[in-house]
Amino acid sequence: MHHLVEQMKQKDIRALARAITMVENDHPDKLDMLSDVFASQKNARYIGITGSPGAGKSSLVNRLISHIRNEDKTVAVIAVDPTSPFSGGALLGDRVRMNEHFTDNGVYIRSMATRGSLGGLARATKDAVRICDAYGFDVVIVETVGVGQSELDIMKIVDTTALVLTPNSGDVLQIFKAGIMEIADLFVINKADLDGVGKLKGLLKELVMMTSKEAQKTPIVKTITTENKGIDTLWEKINEHYDYLYRTEEGRKRRKQQQELEVYELIREEIWREVKTYAENERLTIKADDDPYKQAQAIYQQWKQERGRLNDA
Amino acid sequence: MHHLVEQMKQKDIRALARAITMVENDHPDKLDMLSDVFASQKNARYIGITGSPGAGKSSLVNRLISHIRNEDKTVAVIAVDPTSPFSGGALLGDRVRMNEHFTDNGVYIRSMATRGSLGGLARATKDAVRICDAYGFDVVIVETVGVGQSELDIMKIVDTTALVLTPNSGDVLQIFKAGIMEIADLFVINKADLDGVGKLKGLLKELVMMTSKEAQKTPIVKTITTENKGIDTLWEKINEHYDYLYRTEEGRKRRKQQQELEVYELIREEIWREVKTYAENERLTIKADDDPYKQAQAIYQQWKQERGRLNDA
Repeated sequence: MHHLVEQMKQKDIRALARAITMVENDHPDKLDMLSDVFASQKNARYIGITGSPGAGKSSLVNRLISHIRNEDKTVAVIAVDPTSPFSGGALLGDRVRMNEHFTDNGVYIRSMATRGSLGGLARATKDAVRICDAYGFDVVIVETVGVGQSELDIMKIVDTTALVLTPNSGDVLQIFKAGIMEIADLFVINKADLDGVGKLKGLLKELVMMTSKEAQKTPIVKTITTENKGIDTLWEKINEHYDYLYRTEEGRKRRKQQQELEVYELIREEIWREVKTYAENERLTIKADDDPYKQAQAIYQQWKQERGRLNDA
Repeated sequence: MHHLVEQMKQKDIRALARAITMVENDHPDKLDMLSDVFASQKNARYIGITGSPGAGKSSLVNRLISHIRNEDKTVAVIAVDPTSPFSGGALLGDRVRMNEHFTDNGVYIRSMATRGSLGGLARATKDAVRICDAYGFDVVIVETVGVGQSELDIMKIVDTTALVLTPNSGDVLQIFKAGIMEIADLFVINKADLDGVGKLKGLLKELVMMTSKEAQKTPIVKTITTENKGIDTLWEKINEHYDYLYRTEEGRKRRKQQQELEVYELIREEIWREVKTYAENERLTIKADDDPYKQAQAIYQQWKQERGRLNDA
C-alpha cells in the first residue's frame, strides 16, 4: 500500500494534504496511490454546491458544515476556486471559514486552484474527493464557483448537486446554460430575505414543471445564511435525494456512467503525458507559422512509430 | 485541395457552412480539410466578445456588424451559445440578428453548440474561425457566453478580446475569475445609461492600474447599444489594440503560443479518437465497481501492445 494511504489510515491529516497535492500536481506516480485510495474508500456522501460568484456559496457551506457536525458526522470541503490575479491562489471565503472550524478535527477544508490545463482541475478534484473519502470523512462537499463546462464536469462525481441562486441577480439565466438542468438535483434560493424571492421561486417552479422527467421533482429550498435559516431543510432535502438515488437504480446508473467517463479520461491523460514527454525529449519544436494540423499529424505518427519500435524491442 | 475549400474559393457559402459542420461533428477527415483551410487563410482580424448572459453581447455585436459593414468590410460571427434544454440548440439572439443582416452577403452568422465533450467546442470554434478567414471575411468575431475555462480557451485564438460588463450586475466579480485579467484587452461597459456606471468604471480603472504590466493600459469603453452609442469608439479601440499587437512583437508572440497549444491539442484529440475506437472495436467494457485507475492502465497497456503489433506487421 502506498505510504500516504497507509498514513491516512492512521488519521494523519498531513498525508491527506500531500495526497491531494500529488493529484493537483499530476504526479507521475499518482495512479498507484489512487488505486490504493480507491480500495480504501468508505462510502462517503458526495455533495456539490455550485452557483455564480456572489451567490453566497461559501457562507452556505459554512453553515452546512456546522449543521453536519451537530449530527456528529465529519466533513471535508474541496473548494474549487478561481485563481485570483492578486492572491495567485484561493479567494477570500476560505480563510474566514478556516478560522471558524480551525480547531475542529472533524472538518477539513482544502481549496484547489487551476493549474492551467483544461480538464486537469476537474480530474484532480475528483481524485481529491476520493482521497477525502478514503481518509474517512462522512461527507465530502465540492464547492465550485461558476457553472462553466469544467464545473459541470466536476459535478459528475457527486451524488447530489445543489445550484445556489439569489433573487434579482440575473442568476436565473445560469439555468439555461448547457447541462445545468441535468445536473441540478436541488435549487437553493439563498439570501431569501431579499426582494424578488417569490418571483425567482415562481420561475424555478415553472422550469421544474416543464423539464423534470423523474417522478421526483427537483426541490427548491430557501435559505438565509446570515440568520442560519433553511439549512436544516437543505440538509433534509440532500438526504432525501440521496435516499432516492440508492432506493432506485438512479444512483448506481450515475456512478457507472461516471466511472466509464473516468477510465477514458485517465487513459487520455496517460497518453498525453507520454506524447508530451516524447516531444520534449526529442526536442520537437512547433513552428508558429506552419500548419498546426500537419504538425500534429506528423508528431503523432512519429510517436506511434517510435512506440512500435519500443514494443518490438 | 479539399472540395469544400475549393468551393469556398468560389464564394459558395454553403461550402463554408458544411466545413464548419464538419469540425463541429469532429469528422475523421477534418484534418486534411483544415490543412487546406490553413493554407488559404487571408489574414482576417479575429475579435472576441465575452461576458455574462444578459450583458447585451448580442446587441453589441449586432451594432458592431453594422459599423464594420459601413467601412465596407465583411464580417463573420461565430456565436458560441449554450445549449438550451428547451430549444436543444442556439438561444434567442441569433434569429433576431439573422433577420437584420439576412440579405447581406457580407455578413455570416453561425452559432455553435456544445457537443458534450469538454474542450471539443473550443477546438471546433478555433477551426471555424480559420474557416471563415479562409473564405475571405475581413473580420471574424467570436462571441461567447460566460467566462468559464473553455471560453477562456476559445479566446486564445483571437487577437483582441473585449469583456462586456454592465453596471450593478455583480458582473465585476467575473474579472476575478481565473485568467480574465490576462485575456481582456478591452473592457466594455455596456448599458452605460444605467445607474452605477461611474462606480463600475472607477473600479475597473483601479484594477487596470493595479494589474496592467504593459505600457498599454487596458482601455475602458462605454456603450449604449439601444442608442447606438460608443460603437465607433469601441471599433477604434479594437483597431488600436490590433495595431499595437503587430507594431510590437506581442501579436506574433501570442499566435506562436496559441499555435503550440493547438498542435498538442490536436495530437491529444487524434490519440483519443484512436483509443476510443480501439476500446469500442474490442468491446472493452468498463466495470462500474472496479478500480478506474487500474482499468485505465490496463486498457492503455493493451492498446499500446496492439499498436506495437500493428506497426510490426
